[in-house]
Amino acid sequence: MGGKSMRWADGFIAVDWGTTNRRAYLVDSDGRQAGEFEDARGVLSLEPADFPAAVAEIRQKLGDKPLLLAGMIGSNRGWKDAPYVPCPASIDDLVAKLVWVGEREAIVPGLSYLGDGRADVMRGEEVQLLGGVAAGLVDSNALVCHPGTHNKWTVLHQARIHSFRTVMTGELFSLLKEHSILSDLLQGTVGDDDVFRNAARHAVFNESLPAELFSVRASVLLGQMKKEDAASHASGLLIGTDVRIGLAVPTGAQVVVMGRPELTRLYAAALGQANREAIELDGEQCFVAGIQEIAKRI
Amino acid sequence: MGGKSMRWADGFIAVDWGTTNRRAYLVDSDGRQAGEFEDARGVLSLEPADFPAAVAEIRQKLGDKPLLLAGMIGSNRGWKDAPYVPCPASIDDLVAKLVWVGEREAIVPGLSYLGDGRADVMRGEEVQLLGGVAAGLVDSNALVCHPGTHNKWTVLHQARIHSFRTVMTGELFSLLKEHSILSDLLQGTVGDDDVFRNAARHAVFNESLPAELFSVRASVLLGQMKKEDAASHASGLLIGTDVRIGLAVPTGAQVVVMGRPELTRLYAAALGQANREAIELDGEQCFVAGIQEIAKRI
Repeated sequence: MGGKSMRWADGFIAVDWGTTNRRAYLVDSDGRQAGEFEDARGVLSLEPADFPAAVAEIRQKLGDKPLLLAGMIGSNRGWKDAPYVPCPASIDDLVAKLVWVGEREAIVPGLSYLGDGRADVMRGEEVQLLGGVAAGLVDSNALVCHPGTHNKWTVLHQARIHSFRTVMTGELFSLLKEHSILSDLLQGTVGDDDVFRNAARHAVFNESLPAELFSVRASVLLGQMKKEDAASHASGLLIGTDVRIGLAVPTGAQVVVMGRPELTRLYAAALGQANREAIELDGEQCFVAGIQEIAKRI
Repeated sequence: MGGKSMRWADGFIAVDWGTTNRRAYLVDSDGRQAGEFEDARGVLSLEPADFPAAVAEIRQKLGDKPLLLAGMIGSNRGWKDAPYVPCPASIDDLVAKLVWVGEREAIVPGLSYLGDGRADVMRGEEVQLLGGVAAGLVDSNALVCHPGTHNKWTVLHQARIHSFRTVMTGELFSLLKEHSILSDLLQGTVGDDDVFRNAARHAVFNESLPAELFSVRASVLLGQMKKEDAASHASGLLIGTDVRIGLAVPTGAQVVVMGRPELTRLYAAALGQANREAIELDGEQCFVAGIQEIAKRI
């Protein structure tokens, strides 16, 4: 690995390449972020033949450096399939299972979980999670919530990803907002307000989401709810349900919410309704920390 | 009312006029069904100005008789708004609150429920529910499940609709099938098979629907579930969750499932997984019984 290591120590480009967009960072030889960009060239916007050019474009923008890629770029819809690494998994397991496309292009694999009679997969979050630990931002033992289209609740144990569970909260909210009978009611802004918190508390302690959602419409029709409160209420129901599912894992460990600040704020508020304090962390910062940790070990 | 009654006794036309389609029945002076048709002219396909012609078309097809209309035709998107009648409500309450468009055209109002800190509404199911009781098919005290886009669980007490709760199961399945990440997995046929029953039993006893749904995708990806089983599994999860919510009302009463046979069969199977036997009834038969009972009392 000596030759490779030397090259990575001279700086590299890290890419968080998702379904709908990608974000690339130039990391210099001192480990500092020396440039970055984001665009909408997610894997679903690209055909298999497009990837070499899409990768070349990154080097045109940030320099002719080695590339370390994570996220859906390693799925069967991406550049090259990086098979899932089973849990429990450490940062060394990710390094050991890097998939090399060329000598200077490596893809970080996603993780799979089989247990408790269920199956689950993640791609991209593992770098942020283990990066948070490596950077000292997250305890070695923690419950980490990762909001997004598909929220992940991850149990970290001794700095390894022990297990995780995906809840499709973000996607359900989008489906309801774009295509359902509630559509016209959900166009408003979701705020971390009393309406949101009350709905979240209700959902943390009651299990009847598909009924509560219809009640949003009936409540507005019958003058029991203001139309402008419907979006916060529905979001509170969904996120409260999500928190109930996430906290079903018995753990006394630290609870962390990692991701985009506008989402971590809502989850932290819902966790508060379940009487759990949460630390909010920026997902981007954790991603860069995680990918640097991987690069160091190549 | 004498004059009106005489006219209705000579036969009339009953219409179950929903969002996406309508079904009309000619009831003769002996109370027999003497003709019927169904088409796609639901209220959402019509502009306000279209209703007189759409009504005239029914008489052209079935005869120049008085009309008794139920369903979304009485909503604010229908011909004339028939305000919700609050629960508890009997068949006489529906008759008392009929909304007359002309001398020979009456709309049956829907019902509203406010209680247990929630709100709910129905339009159309009330005729079937009370019709089932009037025809002796449903006990005066019963829990009636009414599958469809928005399933209703109704508590009947002393032949009155005491309360009800809507669960948006059918709509959630459609959203997932048409627009979600599970879309390609849910195109198969849903059967009342072991896969469906096992998923339903799981959902009756576990409350984590938005996580279980994502697990369908992960299970197929990781080879834990056959792709062709995904639709039955997801439907079992949704209907099992629905049954858990419906049975949360403590009742030792008869359980009835009323509606289209392909749906009542699935709900009866899921109820079986919760150890409750259910009587399946055809919703159309109950609708005609209910509307005749209303016509008799005009």
